[in-house]
Amino acid sequence: MLQGGLIHPSSPGCYCYLPPAVRAMEKLIKVMDEEMQAVGGQKLNLPSLCSAELWRASGRWDQMGPELFRLVDRHNHGYCLGPTHEEVVTALVASQSGLSYRQLPLLLYQVTRKFRDEPKPRFGLLRSREFYMKDMYSFDASEEAARRTYERVCDAYCSLFTRLGLPFLKVQAATGSIGGTTSHEFQLPADIGEDRLVLCPQGHFAANVETLNGEQISCPTCGEKLTETKGIEVGHTFYLGTKYSSVANAAFSSANNKPQLAEMGCYGLGVSRILAASIEVLSTEDSIRWPSLIAPYQLCFIPPKRGSKEEEEEGAVLLERVYDDLAEAVPHLAGDSVLDDRTQLTIGKRLKDAKKLGYPYVVVAGKRVCEDPPVFEVWNQNAGEVLFLTKEGVLELLSKVQVP
Amino acid sequence: MLQGGLIHPSSPGCYCYLPPAVRAMEKLIKVMDEEMQAVGGQKLNLPSLCSAELWRASGRWDQMGPELFRLVDRHNHGYCLGPTHEEVVTALVASQSGLSYRQLPLLLYQVTRKFRDEPKPRFGLLRSREFYMKDMYSFDASEEAARRTYERVCDAYCSLFTRLGLPFLKVQAATGSIGGTTSHEFQLPADIGEDRLVLCPQGHFAANVETLNGEQISCPTCGEKLTETKGIEVGHTFYLGTKYSSVANAAFSSANNKPQLAEMGCYGLGVSRILAASIEVLSTEDSIRWPSLIAPYQLCFIPPKRGSKEEEEEGAVLLERVYDDLAEAVPHLAGDSVLDDRTQLTIGKRLKDAKKLGYPYVVVAGKRVCEDPPVFEVWNQNAGEVLFLTKEGVLELLSKVQVP
Repeated sequence: MLQGGLIHPSSPGCYCYLPPAVRAMEKLIKVMDEEMQAVGGQKLNLPSLCSAELWRASGRWDQMGPELFRLVDRHNHGYCLGPTHEEVVTALVASQSGLSYRQLPLLLYQVTRKFRDEPKPRFGLLRSREFYMKDMYSFDASEEAARRTYERVCDAYCSLFTRLGLPFLKVQAATGSIGGTTSHEFQLPADIGEDRLVLCPQGHFAANVETLNGEQISCPTCGEKLTETKGIEVGHTFYLGTKYSSVANAAFSSANNKPQLAEMGCYGLGVSRILAASIEVLSTEDSIRWPSLIAPYQLCFIPPKRGSKEEEEEGAVLLERVYDDLAEAVPHLAGDSVLDDRTQLTIGKRLKDAKKLGYPYVVVAGKRVCEDPPVFEVWNQNAGEVLFLTKEGVLELLSKVQVP
Repeated sequence: MLQGGLIHPSSPGCYCYLPPAVRAMEKLIKVMDEEMQAVGGQKLNLPSLCSAELWRASGRWDQMGPELFRLVDRHNHGYCLGPTHEEVVTALVASQSGLSYRQLPLLLYQVTRKFRDEPKPRFGLLRSREFYMKDMYSFDASEEAARRTYERVCDAYCSLFTRLGLPFLKVQAATGSIGGTTSHEFQLPADIGEDRLVLCPQGHFAANVETLNGEQISCPTCGEKLTETKGIEVGHTFYLGTKYSSVANAAFSSANNKPQLAEMGCYGLGVSRILAASIEVLSTEDSIRWPSLIAPYQLCFIPPKRGSKEEEEEGAVLLERVYDDLAEAVPHLAGDSVLDDRTQLTIGKRLKDAKKLGYPYVVVAGKRVCEDPPVFEVWNQNAGEVLFLTKEGVLELLSKVQVP
């Protein structure tokens, strides 16, 4: 096995994702797929190499400045490494001849590597130069329909963060280099966060301070004093109107059979950033905590120390039976379990390591495994509690664990 | 829905993968994950931006010439877009302090986008500039162990192509810019193939002609006349020895507690290329055929034409019942099914479209749906045959369909 750890720096802001991080990321992507497909999203995959020509047409080639990684190919044609894909996806939709209003809305999304030449990459995956993002683009027949789609995608984002058990805020946001007229950020409140947010304690108003004209200290609706917090941006949605569709001529034929520009929205979720931010937000000083749904492994089994009384009393065999019965009753957990067979180490030492790796559940064959019937220690790490359960109790508890 | 098609060109050799292609690719990756993990592979994820420094140290920065996409960041540091990752993964392993021979072999793999500035991108995904590859790197304690690992990974590749139902050849190959001393290619025989292969009809010998010294016309083992065929390269394996580990000092402590360089191998499978090549190899003039296991969708249901006798006799409802019962009996097929409800079109027209999309099975509510009990037409596209079956017969047939 490769040694512990989640990521390893390769060059500034570029990371190797180690096996547990890949597992967590793949689970997170599965949950995102479910949420995006539930609102009608179709998954595609757009190239990283984006032609300079397309980006010049939208004006972003110059506007993005040094954040854009740029290169030329052997024929001296210019490209950027896509940080987002408004231009490319709009050109794709524009190429669909005979697109009818009946086929709309189109919701196209991908989960791919993105690139941004950050001036100061930092905090690991929170601000890296190469990262994974889920980006969706919507194409609607009217502004009204597009605003409905916008709301539905925002609701899907809320559903995602709720399923992950992450406390989040949806705040008004600036449109920046993406453009458009309406924008929201999804933020995880955290001291380490780089964004300053203001909130109405009654829930009427929430905004990134960037959007405010000067100092706003009271809620525009109820007048109550706004509170301030810091946040980590994990999602960003934009209502774009025809900003990109007018450049690429992404049109459809309307009910009157007239060509009409599609009304667009775009929606990003930081995949690698959600991984890093959720650990940041949920963990305690001595234990890493993942959102249970996307923990790299759900379970760790710790058999007795070599030569201990518990080992003599067949503790390891009893623990193995728990695993076997679990694999039969809850097969999807079998591949999500790890056996820490470093039996030269004490249970305490291995339990400490397990906390560092963030298994939601740790099942230990401790002292009480010698009782009749045998009793196992089950650490519910995210709740910070330990339960003493017979095999049947362990199985009942674990049968409720969800895996995407 | 987005219109039909699998890919759409974005710029020369760079493609948008449309939803059916993404589905097929994700299935293929799942099968690869199974095979790689069965031989002990651990999945990680290495950055696309690879520092020029690392590539200069291995000598490949100069050696690769114009095939390498190169760029500089805002601090004028040089990078290439990784076409493979020997340098990066070896540096990662070298960074693991205290690596012991007991932890070996390490088999590390990823499935990521790769980049190569092809002089003449062509044949769609067969020779593109941005593509998906599964690349694995092995680290062993001795040459003997490394050669065993090499064989095991080659066997996993054979197993993969066998599961996909693709006729393949394993041939001796040149080591090219990757280096090392032993190399094999996995080739799909095809007229469109760009590689020339020679084979002993008895199976003693198979090689890419690139590896031969001059004209070799008879088998070195049995003397029989070699036959020639063309092939599409879909996999390539290399025994590397210490070529990269000696540069990065990727060492482990041996049984005698002495530092020793890891013996390496590397193993590539073209993910996007296998998709394109398998369609190329399996399809007929009027129907696209996928390896069944990775077809974007397994099933298409075609209800009767609007206003037809079969529609009046509830053909659509009867077909729906087949779907409902199938979803209950074989739940993993439910999400792999498409209903072609363009009932303004004839069954014949929709069946023709279904052949173009390559569903392994098409279930039609045709004329005989009016019989008692109703009989459905089931087209087994890959076998090129049609069966007439009752609902129970359809369910029995489809219950054998595998999805990864």
